[in-house]
Amino acid sequence: MKLILLSFSILVLFSCSTEKNDAKQENREDVEIAKKVEALISQMTLDEKIAELTQDAPANERLGIPFMKFGEGLHGLWYDGVTVYPQAIACGSTWEPELIKKMASQTALEARALNITHCYSPNLDVISGDPRYGRVEESYGEDPYLVSRMGVAFIQGMQGMGKERLDQNHILTTAKHFAGYPENRRGINGGFSDMSERRFREVYLPPFEAAVKEAEVGCIMPGHQDFNGVPCHMNNWLLNDVLREELGFDGFIVSDNNDVGRLETMHFIPETRTEAALLGLKAGVDMDLVLGKPIELYTYHSNILKDTVTKNPELLQYLDKATTRILTAKYKLGLFGSELKEAKTDTIVSRKEHQDFAYEMAKKAIILLKNDDHLLPLDISNISSLAVIGPNANEERPNQGTYSLLGGYSGLPPYYTSVLEGIQKKAEGRVKINYAKGCDLLSESKTGFPEAIAAAQNSDAVVLVVGGSRKTGGEGIDRSELDLFGVQNDLVEAIHKTGKPIIVVLINGRPLSINYIAENIPSVLETWYLGMRSGDAIADAIFGDVNPGGKLTVSFPRSVGQIPVTYLERPDFIGSGKGLYHFSDKSPLFPFGYGLSYTTFKIDEPKLEHNVIDINGTTSVSVDIKNIGDRAGDEVVQMYVRDDFASVGRYLKMLKGFERISLEPGQTKTVSFKLGFDELQILNQEMKKVVEPGTFTISVGTSSLEKDLQTVKLKVK
Amino acid sequence: MKLILLSFSILVLFSCSTEKNDAKQENREDVEIAKKVEALISQMTLDEKIAELTQDAPANERLGIPFMKFGEGLHGLWYDGVTVYPQAIACGSTWEPELIKKMASQTALEARALNITHCYSPNLDVISGDPRYGRVEESYGEDPYLVSRMGVAFIQGMQGMGKERLDQNHILTTAKHFAGYPENRRGINGGFSDMSERRFREVYLPPFEAAVKEAEVGCIMPGHQDFNGVPCHMNNWLLNDVLREELGFDGFIVSDNNDVGRLETMHFIPETRTEAALLGLKAGVDMDLVLGKPIELYTYHSNILKDTVTKNPELLQYLDKATTRILTAKYKLGLFGSELKEAKTDTIVSRKEHQDFAYEMAKKAIILLKNDDHLLPLDISNISSLAVIGPNANEERPNQGTYSLLGGYSGLPPYYTSVLEGIQKKAEGRVKINYAKGCDLLSESKTGFPEAIAAAQNSDAVVLVVGGSRKTGGEGIDRSELDLFGVQNDLVEAIHKTGKPIIVVLINGRPLSINYIAENIPSVLETWYLGMRSGDAIADAIFGDVNPGGKLTVSFPRSVGQIPVTYLERPDFIGSGKGLYHFSDKSPLFPFGYGLSYTTFKIDEPKLEHNVIDINGTTSVSVDIKNIGDRAGDEVVQMYVRDDFASVGRYLKMLKGFERISLEPGQTKTVSFKLGFDELQILNQEMKKVVEPGTFTISVGTSSLEKDLQTVKLKVK
Repeated sequence: MKLILLSFSILVLFSCSTEKNDAKQENREDVEIAKKVEALISQMTLDEKIAELTQDAPANERLGIPFMKFGEGLHGLWYDGVTVYPQAIACGSTWEPELIKKMASQTALEARALNITHCYSPNLDVISGDPRYGRVEESYGEDPYLVSRMGVAFIQGMQGMGKERLDQNHILTTAKHFAGYPENRRGINGGFSDMSERRFREVYLPPFEAAVKEAEVGCIMPGHQDFNGVPCHMNNWLLNDVLREELGFDGFIVSDNNDVGRLETMHFIPETRTEAALLGLKAGVDMDLVLGKPIELYTYHSNILKDTVTKNPELLQYLDKATTRILTAKYKLGLFGSELKEAKTDTIVSRKEHQDFAYEMAKKAIILLKNDDHLLPLDISNISSLAVIGPNANEERPNQGTYSLLGGYSGLPPYYTSVLEGIQKKAEGRVKINYAKGCDLLSESKTGFPEAIAAAQNSDAVVLVVGGSRKTGGEGIDRSELDLFGVQNDLVEAIHKTGKPIIVVLINGRPLSINYIAENIPSVLETWYLGMRSGDAIADAIFGDVNPGGKLTVSFPRSVGQIPVTYLERPDFIGSGKGLYHFSDKSPLFPFGYGLSYTTFKIDEPKLEHNVIDINGTTSVSVDIKNIGDRAGDEVVQMYVRDDFASVGRYLKMLKGFERISLEPGQTKTVSFKLGFDELQILNQEMKKVVEPGTFTISVGTSSLEKDLQTVKLKVK
Repeated sequence: MKLILLSFSILVLFSCSTEKNDAKQENREDVEIAKKVEALISQMTLDEKIAELTQDAPANERLGIPFMKFGEGLHGLWYDGVTVYPQAIACGSTWEPELIKKMASQTALEARALNITHCYSPNLDVISGDPRYGRVEESYGEDPYLVSRMGVAFIQGMQGMGKERLDQNHILTTAKHFAGYPENRRGINGGFSDMSERRFREVYLPPFEAAVKEAEVGCIMPGHQDFNGVPCHMNNWLLNDVLREELGFDGFIVSDNNDVGRLETMHFIPETRTEAALLGLKAGVDMDLVLGKPIELYTYHSNILKDTVTKNPELLQYLDKATTRILTAKYKLGLFGSELKEAKTDTIVSRKEHQDFAYEMAKKAIILLKNDDHLLPLDISNISSLAVIGPNANEERPNQGTYSLLGGYSGLPPYYTSVLEGIQKKAEGRVKINYAKGCDLLSESKTGFPEAIAAAQNSDAVVLVVGGSRKTGGEGIDRSELDLFGVQNDLVEAIHKTGKPIIVVLINGRPLSINYIAENIPSVLETWYLGMRSGDAIADAIFGDVNPGGKLTVSFPRSVGQIPVTYLERPDFIGSGKGLYHFSDKSPLFPFGYGLSYTTFKIDEPKLEHNVIDINGTTSVSVDIKNIGDRAGDEVVQMYVRDDFASVGRYLKMLKGFERISLEPGQTKTVSFKLGFDELQILNQEMKKVVEPGTFTISVGTSSLEKDLQTVKLKVK
C-alpha cells in the first residue's frame, strides 16, 4: 500500500516538472522566434510587409519566408477528394467532444497533405434561437457551454496540444465570428447585432474565452456585422480590450471576406478604402481576406495603404505589429526551412480510416425525435418490402461542387452514401426496395406524388426522407418561414394517408416547424447532414444496428412566429400566469437537449456530495443511470444550474455539465458533475463573475424540459 | 418703420422679463412648498408616511393631507361616461401633435370632474417592429422622434403649461414604461429586454428625455421587465443615473402594477417581500401600485416594510424622500386646502364639445392604404345599394365594460358609433344598406358566409369591415401570428369572388399581414380604433366628406417571419447584394410614413437654405408642395436625415421633422424643417451626441420609402 502511494506521488511530481520544463521550453522557443521575426522584419520593405497581411500570407522568396495557405475545415476540408464529416450542428448533436477532437485532428492531416496550414474553422457562434438564419447548421448549438466544449475539442484536435501543438501533423485554427454574430436582425446574415454587455458575456463570449484560454486558438475572425454600432472589424473594444487585453489572445486576427473594405462599402463609416484599411489595421485586424478579387486592388496590399504608410510613418508600428503576428504564426507552424511540396489538388487525401471515423460520428449524431409503439427499429426479417421516398432520399451526383446534402462549407468527398444507397446495401436481397422521389425540394410540382403513393402502397413500411439542402439553407440562404420547403409537407400527408407505417428521416440544416409530422408520423429521425457516410449510418439506425443517442442542441419552434426559441429564457410573468401567446403555445415543438432511444433508461435522484458548501467551495452531483431496456444504448446526462435568488436576472437554467454514456442492458453507471465556481457563478451588476450565497437548483436529466429533469438543492454559505 | 421695430423690441423685452418673473415666482413657490412638505413630514408617523406611498396616495385626515386619485387616460379616461378618443396608435397616425395636446387637455377636464388628479398616461414606448406584442396599439409608433413629439404634446395638454401647469383644469401625467419595454423577447409582454446602451439612447430614451426636459412630466412609471439583467423597478442606472441625474427628472416614480413585489415573485432577485420593497424604495420607486389586492398586504404599506424601517432607522431617509416627492406633487396640484367633492361615477362627464373633438381626431387619423381606380370615395348619388359586412362592422352593446372596438385602456363612452351606424346615418333614405356580419371575430364558423355573399351580390358595392378587437389584441394578448384572426380572410376571399367593388375597412390594434387584401381588394382604409365616433368618421371617408390624410406610424410586415420590421434598419450586405431572405421579400407590406389621399400632391425638390454649414451651424430645408388634384386634402411632409459617413453605424435614415398641411385644389404651400444639432447629431463611440463633419443626405417626401423621397446633400464643415 505504501509503495503504491509513493509511486503515485513520484508520478505527480514528475508530471509537474515535465509541465514546467515544457513551459520553459516554449518560453525559450517564443523568445527565439521573436528574435528571428524581428530580424526578418528589419530587412523587409514596406511592400513586402503588406504582402504578408494578405490571405495565404504569400511566400517571400528574397527573404526565404514561406507561404501559409488557408482553407476551410468545419467538418472536413472545403476541397475535392477530402473526407466529409457530419456538419457542425450534427457534431454538436453527438454531445461528445472527443469525437470532434478526433475529426479535427484527422482534418489537420488532410490539410497538411494539401499544404494547408491555416484553417478558418471552427465556428463558435452560439445560435440565438432564430432558425431563419441560414448558418444555424454551422454552429454546435444554442448553448454557450456546449459550444465551448465542442470548440475547445476542435481546436485542440486540429492545432494539437503540448509538444504536438502546430507540429507537422497539425495546423492553425480560426475561431469565428467574433462576436455576437448570430444575434443578427431578422435572421439575416450580417444584419446588425445589438445586445447588452451582459448578454455578450453570458452567451457569446464564453466559447471564445475557452478557445483562447483553454485551447490557445491561434487565430480569430471577427463577424461581418455592426456590433452595437461599431462594426466588429474596427471594434477596438471587442478586438483589443476584450480579446487581447482581457482574454490574453496572442495570435493573429484575420478579417472575414471583404470586411475591412466593407467598413466603407457596407457600414459607411470611412469615406475611403484607405481609411477603412487603417481602421481595420489599428483595431488589430492583422490579415485582410478578400476572396475572388485581384488582391492588389482590394486588400491591405493595395497601393492606397502603401502610399498612406509612406506618407504617415507613425502608422508603421501597426503594420509591423501585424507582420510580426503573421510571421510568428509561420514560425510556430514550422513552415520556415521546410521545403513545401506543391499540393496536388487532384489527389484524394481522404483515407479509409477517416471515412470510417466519419461513419462512426454519423452514427453518434442521429437523434430519435419520436418513436410511437416502437416502430423503430425495423426488423429486417419481418418485412418483405420497404418504400424509400422523398427528395432527400437519394443524391447520385455532386451538385455545384459537392453533394447538396452535406451542408455548407463541404468539400467534395470521393463518394457519398445516400439513404437509398445505405438501405439498399443493408437490405440487399432480403427486402424489396421501392424508391420514388415524390417531389423535388425546390419545385411546387406534385406530379411525382402518384408514383410515391404507389411505392408506399406496395410496401410494408415507408422511409420518407424530407428536409432541406444547401439549396434551402446555409450561408446566405436565410428564410422568412420555417416550414418544410415546397410541397414536402403535402407529400408527407399524401403518404400518411396510405395508412402504411412511416418513418420520417429529416436531412436538413436548421430546425423546422414540422407540426404535421410531429403529430401524425409515428417515428421521426433528425439526422442533419451526416457527412459522406450519411446513408450507411441512417440505415443502421433504421434497422437497429445503431441505437440513436444524439440530442438536439437547438430548439425546434412550433412556428416562425415563436422565435427566438431557445431554452435560455428569463422569467416573464410566470408569477401571474401570463407570458403566453394568447392563442398559441410558446413552448418549443422539440426542446434543447431532447432525444429518445430504442431502450429505456432509469435515472435515480441526483445526490450531492455536500448539501452545503462554502462560497469558495466545490462539490459534485452524481446520479446513477441504468439501462432498463433490452438493448444497448447511449444516454446524454445533462446538468443545469439555477441560482434561485441572485442580485441580477438570470436565465431559467443554464447547462453546466453533460456526459454521454453507453450502457448495456441492465448495466448501471454513475455520472458525476463538478459544482464549483465555474458552474455556480453569475455576472453581478458590476459584470464580475461571483458566486452569491443562497440556494441553487441543480437539475440533472435527459433534456432541458422540466419533466425530464430531477432536482436537488445546493446551499452556498 | 422705426416705430414698428421699436414696438417689437419692447415686446421682446417685456416677454423676457415676464418669463424671468415667472421663473422667480415658480422658484419661490417651490421653496415654499418644500418648507410646507418638510413641516408636514416632521409630524407624520412611520405608518402615515408609508400610507402616502400607496396608489391614490390616500388622504391623511389628522394632518389635513388630501388624497391624489389616479386614473388611466391614454385616449380619454378609463371610466364610465367619459369621452373616448382614438387609440394611441390612431393618435400617432394623425401626425398632428396639437390634436393630441387638445385631447389630453380635454381629458384632464373630465378627470378633474371625477377627482382624478394623477394619470398613468401617456405611453412613450417606441415600438420595436414586433407586432406580435399586444400593446402596439398603445404606442404612437415605431419612431423615437414621432413618439417624442406626440408625448410632449400629450403631457403639455394634460398637465398644462406655464401658469396653467397643474392648475384646477390640469392633472399630473405619467410617462411610461421606462424604458425599453417593447424590446421584449418574442413579442411577449414583460419578456426580458436586452439592448446596447446605444440602442437605449437612440431609440427608447428620446421620448422620455423630451417628456422630462421639454414637457416637465410629473411622474414616471418603470417597465415590468428585466432590463439587461436588472429589472426596471430596481434599476439604479435607469432610475437614478439616467432619469434623475442625467435628465434631471424631479417628479415621483410610481411602480407598474405589482412590480415591486414581482422583483421577488417573477424576477427571483430578493428572497422576501421586505427585500423587494427595499430594492424598489432605494432605486427611487416612490409609490407602489398594487391593484386588486388588499393594499395592506401587498404594497409598501405592508407591515413588513414598517417593521423593517423601525428596526433599521437608516432606511428612513428613503422613505422621507419618497414621501416628500408625493406630498410635493399634491401641493403642486393644488390639492391642499381645496375641498374635494366626492366624484360621482354615475355622472356622464363627457361633454358634447369633447365628443365633437373625438370625431375631428378620428377623421384626421384615417389612413388610405390602397385605392385602385379611385374606387373611393363612393358617390352617394351613384349607388343605390351598399353591403356592409364583417365582424367589426357593428357593435351594439358594450362588451366587458366597454366596446371591444375602442382598444385597450378605454372607458365606456355614453355611446359608440359603429361603421354600420355611421353609414346608415349618412346614407339614410338614399342608399339601401344590406348588412351581414359574415363571421364572428373569434369563431372558426363560416355559417354566416352565405348571408354575407348574398348581401354583397344584392349591392352595388361592399364595405367589408375586418381586423381585430380587444379580444385579439391589447395588453396581455400577444400573438404568434399576424394574419387576420379566424375565418376573416376566407370571408374577404368569398366576398371578393362576387366580383363586386369592395372597400376593406380595417379596425384593429396592430399591423396585420393582410397580403390577400393588399393584392386583391381595390380600396383599403386603416382606421385602427377611432374612438366613440368611429363610424361617423369612417362613413365620412367612404363618401368623401373626409379626404384621408393619416399616415402609418408602424410598418406592416408581409409575414410574421419578417419581424422585427421597422424602417429603423442598418445596412446589411447592401453593398454585396445580399441581405434578403432567399425566397421572399424583406420589405414591408406597407411602410412607416405611408398613406394615400383622394387628391394628388406634387412636391418640388427640397432646397437647402445653405448647402454648406459650419459644424455648429443651423440651416433649413424647404419644399413646395402643391395640390394638383381636384379635392382639398392633407399631406404629411416628412424629413429624414442620414449622416452619409460617420464614426459609428447608423440607421439608414431617421425621421427628424414632419408637418401635416391642408391644401385646397391648386394651392401650394412651402414646408420648412430646421437642420441643426438635434437633427444632425449622432451618438459617437463615447456615447456623446456630436455633429461630425461630412455630407448628410436630407430626404423629404411622403413616406419612408426611397421612392417617395427626394434628397438633397448638406455639407457640414
